[in-house]
Amino acid sequence: MARFMDVHDGFFGVSGEQLAEAHQRDLAIQDDEGVVYEQAWLDAESGKVFCLASGPSKEAVMRIHERAGHPTPQVYLITAEV
Amino acid sequence: MARFMDVHDGFFGVSGEQLAEAHQRDLAIQDDEGVVYEQAWLDAESGKVFCLASGPSKEAVMRIHERAGHPTPQVYLITAEV
Repeated sequence: MARFMDVHDGFFGVSGEQLAEAHQRDLAIQDDEGVVYEQAWLDAESGKVFCLASGPSKEAVMRIHERAGHPTPQVYLITAEV
Repeated sequence: MARFMDVHDGFFGVSGEQLAEAHQRDLAIQDDEGVVYEQAWLDAESGKVFCLASGPSKEAVMRIHERAGHPTPQVYLITAEV
């Protein structure tokens, strides 16, 4: 299992409740691809969301996000963390 | 105290040890601004580093990173997390 950080744009003005709903749509289907979305952080002013996930591949992470309605091409393989 | 995610570019080919050294340079001076750098994630292929921090302001986070030798203008205030 590898870890990934991904970045979404366009989440301007989104509330914590809306973030939780979007995250829940990932959690509901993540088992299909063996992905685990661990955490998500929102900056509603800039519209950014950062998601930390683990899974078998970048493509698996992207497919779940796409099916959940918030696709992003910005998925980064974590090679080290501190 | 607010939380922030920041993004650095240009860390191509950096090792885990080098990431730890860079992070240590933040930790060594973070008390000067009341900032706490919690975690950092590296993608050495794309050269991205993501840092999660807490502190009094975006500017405080930026000043520590600048003094530690890795300035970035990409600092995001976290308005919600799940």
